[in-house]
Amino acid sequence: MSEKVSLEEVQQLVAGNKKPFEEFLALESVSTQGRQLQETAEYVAGMFEDLGGEARILDDLNNSFPLVYGFFEAGPGGNKEKTILFYNHYDVQPEEPLAEWETPPFELTRKGDLLVARGISDDKGELMARLYALKLLQESDDGLPVNVKFIVEGEEEIGSPNIDAYIEQYADLLAADVCFWEGGGKNADGDIVLSGGIKGIAYFDVWVDGADTDIHSSKGAIVDNAAWRLVHALASLRTPDNEIIIDGFYDLMTEPTEKEREVVQKIPFDEESEKAVYGLKHPLITDGLDYTPQEALVFYPTLTISGLESGYTGEGTKTVLPKTARAKLDFRLVPGYTASEVEKLLRAHLDEHGFEDVQIELLTQLEPFRTDLEDPYVDIVVETAEEVYGKGNVVLEPNSAGGGPMYGFDKFLNVPVMGTGVGWAKSDVHAPNENIRLEDFYQGIVYLVTMLDKLK
Amino acid sequence: MSEKVSLEEVQQLVAGNKKPFEEFLALESVSTQGRQLQETAEYVAGMFEDLGGEARILDDLNNSFPLVYGFFEAGPGGNKEKTILFYNHYDVQPEEPLAEWETPPFELTRKGDLLVARGISDDKGELMARLYALKLLQESDDGLPVNVKFIVEGEEEIGSPNIDAYIEQYADLLAADVCFWEGGGKNADGDIVLSGGIKGIAYFDVWVDGADTDIHSSKGAIVDNAAWRLVHALASLRTPDNEIIIDGFYDLMTEPTEKEREVVQKIPFDEESEKAVYGLKHPLITDGLDYTPQEALVFYPTLTISGLESGYTGEGTKTVLPKTARAKLDFRLVPGYTASEVEKLLRAHLDEHGFEDVQIELLTQLEPFRTDLEDPYVDIVVETAEEVYGKGNVVLEPNSAGGGPMYGFDKFLNVPVMGTGVGWAKSDVHAPNENIRLEDFYQGIVYLVTMLDKLK
Repeated sequence: MSEKVSLEEVQQLVAGNKKPFEEFLALESVSTQGRQLQETAEYVAGMFEDLGGEARILDDLNNSFPLVYGFFEAGPGGNKEKTILFYNHYDVQPEEPLAEWETPPFELTRKGDLLVARGISDDKGELMARLYALKLLQESDDGLPVNVKFIVEGEEEIGSPNIDAYIEQYADLLAADVCFWEGGGKNADGDIVLSGGIKGIAYFDVWVDGADTDIHSSKGAIVDNAAWRLVHALASLRTPDNEIIIDGFYDLMTEPTEKEREVVQKIPFDEESEKAVYGLKHPLITDGLDYTPQEALVFYPTLTISGLESGYTGEGTKTVLPKTARAKLDFRLVPGYTASEVEKLLRAHLDEHGFEDVQIELLTQLEPFRTDLEDPYVDIVVETAEEVYGKGNVVLEPNSAGGGPMYGFDKFLNVPVMGTGVGWAKSDVHAPNENIRLEDFYQGIVYLVTMLDKLK
Repeated sequence: MSEKVSLEEVQQLVAGNKKPFEEFLALESVSTQGRQLQETAEYVAGMFEDLGGEARILDDLNNSFPLVYGFFEAGPGGNKEKTILFYNHYDVQPEEPLAEWETPPFELTRKGDLLVARGISDDKGELMARLYALKLLQESDDGLPVNVKFIVEGEEEIGSPNIDAYIEQYADLLAADVCFWEGGGKNADGDIVLSGGIKGIAYFDVWVDGADTDIHSSKGAIVDNAAWRLVHALASLRTPDNEIIIDGFYDLMTEPTEKEREVVQKIPFDEESEKAVYGLKHPLITDGLDYTPQEALVFYPTLTISGLESGYTGEGTKTVLPKTARAKLDFRLVPGYTASEVEKLLRAHLDEHGFEDVQIELLTQLEPFRTDLEDPYVDIVVETAEEVYGKGNVVLEPNSAGGGPMYGFDKFLNVPVMGTGVGWAKSDVHAPNENIRLEDFYQGIVYLVTMLDKLK
């Protein structure tokens, strides 16, 4: 067999080393609420040291929650010239709505084949899988096959506002040959998904102020209405058929490479299961378009209204003409776009179409990123996955549909970035009863051990 | 002089009969909260009886809050063949926001030249003015010049859902030659405004359900978005230039008569003061159109977005694709339209334009109404106003821009309807510190006395 360790060995190791797993999950490191972040960062540093590694808390920039750096040197039989960098985060989403949890959210609970706890999939369980893999390799005859570094941040769930500054500042410390990303796991078909990039984000507050006060709606005959202004401005940005019609928008889009197109063609997609999961009432917006849902998810930028608010929204009637109207606009960006370019295009489009009164503020930005799929590292990661998970059970995506702070790793460290996690399609990430399957966890550790060995 | 009484006589009468005025205003008859309605109805009936009238509580239909009917026969020198019907309401708006009141809302307070209390303008003070006028006429040599009836409802502030049923049921009891309406008073220029009609209302909940759950916005690449559906549906109903583009909408509109056009041409309009009152940030929507603001207010239907709600509307970002989106749509209708016709057109338009998924529910309806301005009663009311308030200080409008349950009075009683009140431009109706000016109150009583005498 090609795996370095068996599932049984993994299972034994985890069973004999449950305490840090339980204690790590018990820490309520909710970044958006500022809970137990310092404590959890110190706990992570402690785990690194307990495994014989070097640990450092980084917290000198921008008043951020601390990041934890870890370093483990390659063993006697390993390659000290080769370094892998793991990216993880120790912060989690809030546990609300608490009433929907079937077990205490900050108590690692085994429920049949599942492990349940807040953060078990996103992202504490993944960090633990990496630490267990590390321990298994340390205990092997040759020791660690390569140098291993960790950068574990505490602000991922609030948009990683400071990580780029830290990567730039600590570029020498973090220097590596390759970076293995956090997140993901198996899709609805049970295939392991390997992701070589992320989409960027440009998220805006958009609003119109029409008057100092709400006005009786009988004045609608003469008084302009902030809600109408907002509706018309929004409608000018995108067609009902999902085409973004901001002037010049698609000109920025980088054409996917041949390799990327090839890879996306192989991504499976099950429309019916997609609809069932969310109870979708409408056809997919790619119906009738000349690209597939998979191409849409990977290659196309999106423009989502995430929120609308104006005037009276309670039960029944209130005959009011609202003084103000607001929207939240969420752009997902692919290579070619930056949030600031999108902001410029959006402002110019609104001005050009008579909506100078519609105000915008860029709230969050993340740059898009795709690793070069021709990089040899990509082949190693994919081939190892095919060995461990089985050929035909591995899906490679040039980038995920979601976001993450991947861009800075390329920009400041110049490493290929790629990765997967130990979750599955029903991990309920960010939701109550977040879980992973024990089998996926063990298999993920086997994969990590095997991959690290391959990188030697 | 042409007035039947002097301001001094009125002042003396009011000063000597303050108790019912104070007690009536002290009753917290907030219909939308169901407070003290029965008690207030009984108080009104008691005031009628104390003035020697006949009173009846009407509460046998539709589980409504009670209406109060009052009857006063013409005196010995009066015309018992002529009957005037006064429409009023004893219910008031909630006093919230309480912190903004400078005096207790349910305590009639004199503040300089003002009388302040919830309902003092809308509409308890107006009913009191009518009762004081009645008393003055009763005490005059000839007694009451005509029969006087009252219908005072307790549901005006919640849209008068039951008054048509009562008028139909009690058409014989309420039979009259003319009806004098509630509401209004002096405009920003100090002119008294006489209104011969109202606009109708059709108020809708409009919503789109897109999914069973809010979805991560990365799915915006393939999942249709309830907020986008709503925005596009709304944008299809009205242009940014205020033209309602619901298929066939303007076909229903009744052309104003020559007389109505003539009358509207004389209505003053001060754009700058209009903008200053509300702090308007945009030009009036009639700018650049081929009709005037006055014509818009009187002759044109309107379509106002009164509310918008979807997804995340808090501070900062939440990257969500909303499962649902809602709007409140407020149509103001002129003669030719009914709410049910508008509902049909709206449904047909949405279906026709691919928005079958956009759901609508008619929440409130009021039929529009305009009294025939050629009716001799209109001349008497206007001429009397000119005598009391001075020629050049009287504005006649074929209908107000606002609504009210006027339609049933024409339909079931077949009477011309017209009226004015004792308020002024800054009465702050429905708002904190609702007030009237003492002088307007006295002058209003003089006007009522003079008008009733003219109708003999």
